Amino acid sequence: MVLSIPDHFPEITGPTLMIHRQKVDENLQKILAKTRAQQVDFRPHMKTHQHPLVGEWMKAAGVRKITVSSLEMARQHALWGWTDITVAIPVNIRMIQEIKSLSLETNLAILVDHPDVVHILGQELIHVGIWIELDTGSGRTGIPGHEIEKIKTVLKTIDAYPSLSCRGFLWHDGHQYGNHDQESLETTWHQSVQMANKIRKEFGERGLTLALSAGDTPSASRIENISQVDEIRPGNLIYYDLMQWQTGVCDFDQIALCLAAPVIGFYPDRCEIAVQAGAVHLSKEALQLPDGQSIYGVPVRLKPGGWDPLSKPAYVDRISQEHGLIRLPKEEMKNFPIGSLIGILPIHSCLTADIMKHQPHLVI
Amino acid sequence: MVLSIPDHFPEITGPTLMIHRQKVDENLQKILAKTRAQQVDFRPHMKTHQHPLVGEWMKAAGVRKITVSSLEMARQHALWGWTDITVAIPVNIRMIQEIKSLSLETNLAILVDHPDVVHILGQELIHVGIWIELDTGSGRTGIPGHEIEKIKTVLKTIDAYPSLSCRGFLWHDGHQYGNHDQESLETTWHQSVQMANKIRKEFGERGLTLALSAGDTPSASRIENISQVDEIRPGNLIYYDLMQWQTGVCDFDQIALCLAAPVIGFYPDRCEIAVQAGAVHLSKEALQLPDGQSIYGVPVRLKPGGWDPLSKPAYVDRISQEHGLIRLPKEEMKNFPIGSLIGILPIHSCLTADIMKHQPHLVI
Repeated sequence: MVLSIPDHFPEITGPTLMIHRQKVDENLQKILAKTRAQQVDFRPHMKTHQHPLVGEWMKAAGVRKITVSSLEMARQHALWGWTDITVAIPVNIRMIQEIKSLSLETNLAILVDHPDVVHILGQELIHVGIWIELDTGSGRTGIPGHEIEKIKTVLKTIDAYPSLSCRGFLWHDGHQYGNHDQESLETTWHQSVQMANKIRKEFGERGLTLALSAGDTPSASRIENISQVDEIRPGNLIYYDLMQWQTGVCDFDQIALCLAAPVIGFYPDRCEIAVQAGAVHLSKEALQLPDGQSIYGVPVRLKPGGWDPLSKPAYVDRISQEHGLIRLPKEEMKNFPIGSLIGILPIHSCLTADIMKHQPHLVI
Repeated sequence: MVLSIPDHFPEITGPTLMIHRQKVDENLQKILAKTRAQQVDFRPHMKTHQHPLVGEWMKAAGVRKITVSSLEMARQHALWGWTDITVAIPVNIRMIQEIKSLSLETNLAILVDHPDVVHILGQELIHVGIWIELDTGSGRTGIPGHEIEKIKTVLKTIDAYPSLSCRGFLWHDGHQYGNHDQESLETTWHQSVQMANKIRKEFGERGLTLALSAGDTPSASRIENISQVDEIRPGNLIYYDLMQWQTGVCDFDQIALCLAAPVIGFYPDRCEIAVQAGAVHLSKEALQLPDGQSIYGVPVRLKPGGWDPLSKPAYVDRISQEHGLIRLPKEEMKNFPIGSLIGILPIHSCLTADIMKHQPHLVI
């Protein structure tokens, strides 16, 4: 069965990432309203979208400070005109020359969690902001919050170099993504804030000059009172995705990113269609349904200016490098003949946007 | 603990994909020797590497025919000077104008598994090769081998258009990747070949003009006698990876791709290091160890011209977008201070090479 119905998007010929401007705007305005009301700086993490246009929308909304996750991404955003950039990953000292260049061209801040790194930065750089990364419980990077002596050593080392200016303490509650109810979310948020405040108090007067920076989308979206910190750095909330929807962090209608995929195979016997949408478009990120099935996206019906859910739940069941297989409700098969387009909401929008960043985009 | 030891790769500052030329050459020569001895065409799948240099090595070794997995990749390879290209995915008819252009510029062949698509191609194109895709059991795309009437309809439709030239039957034994012992591998290979031959016989004299094209790395690597088919289209065997190694398809020493990753965090208490190597470098593809643990790569020690395994098994345990966490044997910790480089062998080289294709490469 091959397309003969009118098509809303004749300009789309291959897999194309659709950015829903109105949803992005709403997501952006919501977090801006919250942070402005509480006088907390909003320093969005650009790793989610990595798109110059989304960046321009942020600039137009008044955003001036950003977060990125690599020096490479800092360079890209400096080229796009951003001048206040925090690189929220322990600094890669092999790129010391690039750090030096970026620190001369922008208001750059970098992360450290080891005193030896501070010596190298202090000796090599002329001026750079430094955040001390705390591990508040995620066990990824950062100094564990209870290692007060190590934290003191790092701050003392930073303060010994006139070239280094300590901004304060920064953390990422990666374990927050595993908390699905409001109580657990609030508990994690408050534990991290208390840990950071306790550390700050260890430094007396000096401590009062040190800021607190927290970053994660569940906290930014679901903690009402965030005024205990000085800035937040969420990234995902600009697009959201199925992972955030599954854990109740966003509504289905807030998901602002969708892959438009051409239908290339039609298999009515098994109620499946094949699409050109595989691991190189969606990423290999999977989500587990309550019954244990792994899925790679949720299909939606594209319409002018947006998309609608299908009549019944349906999933991208299997993917390989370029192929995706979608099992459809029987009554939906007729709507997706070969040559038509189907929308796919991504499991993890950050990875889908990253992997698609050199491929076609359409703002709708 | 920060780097003070001499470094073999001072030119590498960020995550860099290392291509081991000697291993690539050996993998290439091995399959060329096999296919030439048996007079089977070798039409490598370029989706694995997508690298112009690896393509040039193939050209130098005498390869003239290639496989790709999208029209976009066909265009890229046409620009790199390839003139005989099979696009091994059911054709995306939304790109009919691009198919027309490519078919005029190259010796192009495309895949169909539905008669209605054939009509569009027949009416729109001037000359193109057509393969009928068979589903030999993987349940992805293609016409199931037992649906003889549908296959007959498709061939009859192709033959009705002077612009279309049927090349024969093509399949991809995706289910071969789940076969870990020689007997199962051979069973799957022979079942598919027999199915294709049986179909070919249905067409009498016409059938003798139709070729058979099989494609997958386990079959190409482990089936000794492949002379029952006319061409093979493996891609992965140029690099191999941990997935192929785990199932016994290749030796550890044949893996020809390695991500060099800067060490950015050092955590002796938990015998872990953090590296700048996450889902945007390795992909999110995971492999399950016998104990159920999911891993995202295997660390190796880089040396001039290559890499060696570590003293004991170690794994990339966790990844996020840009971070990787590697648990090391205690005695290895001293070898990977902050600022040093560690190599990571990928789970699935096709996805790692794809995701790294716009990032730094080094041929060693």
